[in-house]
Amino acid sequence: MTAPEQRAPKQDRSRITRERLLGASIDLLATQGWAATTVGAVAAAAGVSRGAAQHHFPTREDLITAALVHMIDQRLVSVATVDSELPEPGPERTIAVVRLIVDHYTSDLFKAALQVWTAAASDPALADRVLPLEAAMSREVLKYAAAALERDPADARVRRAIQTTLDLARGLGLADVLSDDSERRDKIIRFWGQTMDDVLDDARKTEPGAHG
Amino acid sequence: MTAPEQRAPKQDRSRITRERLLGASIDLLATQGWAATTVGAVAAAAGVSRGAAQHHFPTREDLITAALVHMIDQRLVSVATVDSELPEPGPERTIAVVRLIVDHYTSDLFKAALQVWTAAASDPALADRVLPLEAAMSREVLKYAAAALERDPADARVRRAIQTTLDLARGLGLADVLSDDSERRDKIIRFWGQTMDDVLDDARKTEPGAHG
Repeated sequence: MTAPEQRAPKQDRSRITRERLLGASIDLLATQGWAATTVGAVAAAAGVSRGAAQHHFPTREDLITAALVHMIDQRLVSVATVDSELPEPGPERTIAVVRLIVDHYTSDLFKAALQVWTAAASDPALADRVLPLEAAMSREVLKYAAAALERDPADARVRRAIQTTLDLARGLGLADVLSDDSERRDKIIRFWGQTMDDVLDDARKTEPGAHG
Repeated sequence: MTAPEQRAPKQDRSRITRERLLGASIDLLATQGWAATTVGAVAAAAGVSRGAAQHHFPTREDLITAALVHMIDQRLVSVATVDSELPEPGPERTIAVVRLIVDHYTSDLFKAALQVWTAAASDPALADRVLPLEAAMSREVLKYAAAALERDPADARVRRAIQTTLDLARGLGLADVLSDDSERRDKIIRFWGQTMDDVLDDARKTEPGAHG
């Protein structure tokens, strides 16, 4: 058994190596695509030996899955931290929450995930590994969005509206892959944010006593 | 110069060969993915010699671009032909139009297009070839949807609502790549169709004289 003060630096180095490999995976996926993202290429991009990379991630699937988990954790952290900057409840806050969700689906993290999803379309084993991650993320975003919008996530209409936002964000993310679509996207964000705010207000009105 | 009766069968054979190659491209893209869809593999799947395939399509990019054009033409024909089966104007018709658009984005045609888009993310030359096709298709769907909904496509709110439908459909199509998402998707289609119908009715009310 080694003393804690001896073990710690090695663990730190190991953690740093791991994080560099995950970050390089995401960069490579987003910019070079699925086929180019091998364990060897990721190791080279991360400045890590191939052997060290394979020590952490024996297979490409292990590496890619870990990178997706890392990606999702990053997304959730960045979503959670901006909460205090949101406008007061009302249409502008709803638009801001929509924008936050859409921003995630136009980030490099999404572009990396898109490469994995598209590869999973012809690789059922990969799809089996990716699906639970995607489902977990959707649940977390749903919970976050309902809280940010001060709405009840158990209300079917609220759930439906937020799910629609997620699907819309995924589609906007896909459009952004081909070209810079930010100007058009901004109009869609405002349109849908305003529309969703109206829908959620109607939901309140038709459920007397649920809210103020 | 050959007589027309001698030329015609040869032209027919050429057209049939071409269509088999395009169909096989779409099948291979949708089921095997981008990397597997080479001119050689498509020729083999179509039962055409590699030489004949290269006579029609000198490069992989030529073949894939032609397959996308073919794909888009097929989409537009199938969209145009169901018009007479739509319900009377009202929420159910709006939901039916949304369903029609979403159906296209969950078809094998979309799954093939998704492979091309994702490859184009790290291939600017391919993106340049794909972008105008995608833009042309969006314009056609916008025109069709406005006509089917009996709304004015020059109205910004109508355009925005239909564009949102396209983006949402793209996102639903992407979700369907990982797993059969049809049950959840159906709820989103009804929710958004009903919401869009309300939005478009509001647009009429706020523009006196525009419609009845």
